[in-house]
Amino acid sequence: MFSEAQASAEITDVLMEQVDDWNSGDVEAFMEAYWRSDSLRFVSNGTVNYGWQATLDNYHRRYPTRESMGTLTFSELVVRSLTQKWATVFGRFTLVRSAEGGGDLTGLFTLVFERQRDGWKVVQDHTSTP
Amino acid sequence: MFSEAQASAEITDVLMEQVDDWNSGDVEAFMEAYWRSDSLRFVSNGTVNYGWQATLDNYHRRYPTRESMGTLTFSELVVRSLTQKWATVFGRFTLVRSAEGGGDLTGLFTLVFERQRDGWKVVQDHTSTP
Repeated sequence: MFSEAQASAEITDVLMEQVDDWNSGDVEAFMEAYWRSDSLRFVSNGTVNYGWQATLDNYHRRYPTRESMGTLTFSELVVRSLTQKWATVFGRFTLVRSAEGGGDLTGLFTLVFERQRDGWKVVQDHTSTP
Repeated sequence: MFSEAQASAEITDVLMEQVDDWNSGDVEAFMEAYWRSDSLRFVSNGTVNYGWQATLDNYHRRYPTRESMGTLTFSELVVRSLTQKWATVFGRFTLVRSAEGGGDLTGLFTLVFERQRDGWKVVQDHTSTP
């Protein structure tokens, strides 16, 4: 039986685990929330990239050091389960970072989650910064 | 019966009508594609706003003249129907404008469509520019 509340709780767990993984400096574990497919779509401001590996590579390129990763929090989260298989998430990410790490950074994201055999996965990510 | 192809065609029609409306200078008609609700979510780069009226007001503020509206095209469209009621659309918008109108502008968008009694409506819009 489809429970919106349960789906939302499961998805929130995935997001919270991402925060833990990021703040442990483990980008590969953070990426477990993403669909491991060449069809994963990742939009960042004016650029779109496809594929799990390309997304991981971009994270490594953009956040090459522990200091540049800073400390991640998610806020303003709105989890909307559409069906037992699909959900959207809106929220804000904030990185608290040292000046050497690049300084603080915040932005907004819209995610589309699909429930797959191994759990809820982000299949589309649209992230933008001011 | 749920036909993905039919849903995609219907949604594409909505988008094409938006282009026509915009290029006729009719922002109100353009806004008919959006959910007429205070819960409509519109994310533009680093800002989130809620509500159909607020979205219309922002369009009027940002595009106060025919010249600032320019000529709209959508491209790179990917319409993904999830269920008979839900769909996502990714794409690029481009405004060709005179220098006085603000110059050309392009960006990417992710939309969530819901099939409502009066047709497919955008309930979430996340738009970002380079």
